[in-house]
Amino acid sequence: MGADFLPHGERVGRLRFGLDEKEALLLFHAQNIRYLTGFTGDDAALLVGPDWLTLLVDGRYVTQARDEAAAAEVLEFRNRAEGILTAARQRSLERIRFESPCICVEEHLRLRERLVGIALEPEADLFGALRAVKDAGEIERIRQAARIAAEALAAVRPLIRPGVREAEIALELEYRMRLSGAEQAAFETIVASGPHSALPHARPGKRVIAEGDFVKVDYGAVFEGYHSDETCTFAVGRATDRQREVYRLVREAHDRAIGVIRAGVSCAEVDRAARSFLAAQGLGDHFSHGTGHGVGLEVHEAPRLAVGREERLAAGMVVSVEPGVYLPGLWGVRIEDTVAVTEGGCDILTPTAKDFTLL
Amino acid sequence: MGADFLPHGERVGRLRFGLDEKEALLLFHAQNIRYLTGFTGDDAALLVGPDWLTLLVDGRYVTQARDEAAAAEVLEFRNRAEGILTAARQRSLERIRFESPCICVEEHLRLRERLVGIALEPEADLFGALRAVKDAGEIERIRQAARIAAEALAAVRPLIRPGVREAEIALELEYRMRLSGAEQAAFETIVASGPHSALPHARPGKRVIAEGDFVKVDYGAVFEGYHSDETCTFAVGRATDRQREVYRLVREAHDRAIGVIRAGVSCAEVDRAARSFLAAQGLGDHFSHGTGHGVGLEVHEAPRLAVGREERLAAGMVVSVEPGVYLPGLWGVRIEDTVAVTEGGCDILTPTAKDFTLL
Repeated sequence: MGADFLPHGERVGRLRFGLDEKEALLLFHAQNIRYLTGFTGDDAALLVGPDWLTLLVDGRYVTQARDEAAAAEVLEFRNRAEGILTAARQRSLERIRFESPCICVEEHLRLRERLVGIALEPEADLFGALRAVKDAGEIERIRQAARIAAEALAAVRPLIRPGVREAEIALELEYRMRLSGAEQAAFETIVASGPHSALPHARPGKRVIAEGDFVKVDYGAVFEGYHSDETCTFAVGRATDRQREVYRLVREAHDRAIGVIRAGVSCAEVDRAARSFLAAQGLGDHFSHGTGHGVGLEVHEAPRLAVGREERLAAGMVVSVEPGVYLPGLWGVRIEDTVAVTEGGCDILTPTAKDFTLL
Repeated sequence: MGADFLPHGERVGRLRFGLDEKEALLLFHAQNIRYLTGFTGDDAALLVGPDWLTLLVDGRYVTQARDEAAAAEVLEFRNRAEGILTAARQRSLERIRFESPCICVEEHLRLRERLVGIALEPEADLFGALRAVKDAGEIERIRQAARIAAEALAAVRPLIRPGVREAEIALELEYRMRLSGAEQAAFETIVASGPHSALPHARPGKRVIAEGDFVKVDYGAVFEGYHSDETCTFAVGRATDRQREVYRLVREAHDRAIGVIRAGVSCAEVDRAARSFLAAQGLGDHFSHGTGHGVGLEVHEAPRLAVGREERLAAGMVVSVEPGVYLPGLWGVRIEDTVAVTEGGCDILTPTAKDFTLL
């Protein structure tokens, strides 16, 4: 792996911008903690002060936390709220701003009860675009995850034929991704055939592939914590003119969206490039989801490429581009790549060709 | 599958005991919603009134919700908080008691903002022992999950030999469980060899099994939503007298805990049966976790078999029994079965024999 991560210290530095001396940020979200410290375990809490960083873990994780999170002070807790109280007192904190989407009401009540005299303030979006903009090391890992996934799909393609069950293909694909170095599948692999392909999120089941099916495969791998996300739709045996035509239109919507991506363009503009094209073809009602989403330590993260999202893309953001057309009861087509935004355009990280393919 | 589930209506009936007319319970937790309605999707909300039941889902899940949750009224929402507001107004609610460990502070703020004039009250433990006591249909599914898992382990055993990587064994085991009908692995399979076996929760990695290792395999399958949980510790090639001795003692602790289980006994007593025995052998400091936990729609659920847990076992509860001894830097042994509590004792659901085994 040639490309380097931004040092953790620099990431933390950006987050703590504007913190005053008696103030700290409180994080519970595992991927946010990993991003800032390198710690890969669960059930931790992280306090970010203006010039200090305290990682709180239970007994199971002390050794691992010291190894992985070299820049943080590691404190062991038996009870998380008690641990936070201890750390807050050590630093004489007067105010804690916490990740409100990542802390449950029950834990919040326990904290409030204990943190007497300390203001607890909810923050809906502590990270903003911080995690959305990837450094070279992150992009390289997403690319590697996508490569592992695509090689596994290439190996499993001969199974996509009449008589084979969806669930069998999904299992073999996940198995091969892991054999080739994926830590796990990025999400529950979708293999949706025939009428199932008309459901945006079908679970692979006992349905057996038949001649004339579209088979939609939405899949990804995790490599060193980073996810990939790609969708290929294959035709099996034969295809009607209408199937070929809709495939061509979804492909064009996909290409148009990718064509407008570059730093400075708004998320909504990318969505519009795909959506207005499909609408002009009379397929607008059949494209029932957003055009894409950020991909990184989580498979769905900021930004979202959807109607009304006026945030602007920045170089280093990694997003999926995945228009689809779903004809209920009949079949559907989705074509998805994951791309890294650059100043002048984007790099496609998912290597599978998206031409119409008859298997 | 001969054994039947308790009808969903009867489950809901027990939960709504004591609700008055202007009051409802609000649930977000996917397994709790599945337990009460049969709906297997994500991202839903369930309102339980004194004589009505409303399941709120987004557009992706409407068809599935109507199919699976026959006893509930299904409402579609675009925004979950708005959907809850609509349902609450239809029923003229004055009070909503919500699952405080399952709702984040951010969602709670959004609800509070919208539900003007309706009291929102946190409930830390809405379910109490309700889900902890399993019916015959649930126990049968856990038994089936355990059977699928054990057969897969039997098939993979020849791989547990010098020269094979931990991660390879874990992958093959998960693959075979799914080939045999498991929906997925019950949790990230642990295969921890040599010094790794001394960590209670090691992740399987690149370490290669060596002659003289203990190999700890903690694994389970999911069948129709229900989990199994079992740990086997094998010796590879040869074992020292000390290894054999510690294995024998952990086995005896395990047998003693299982020996005291029956309806009416407290959770702490079961824990004590294992813990006091190991302490008397000078191994108390090396048994660093609780003796067990409930197993069902989640792999960790109520009750917990641990120090200070004075709740009493009831017939139909399903719990793991998993004492372990961990000698840091050297090796560890854990022996775990999952059992169903009966009036006079318990049924062991995990079929693998726990005798000392040299592979």
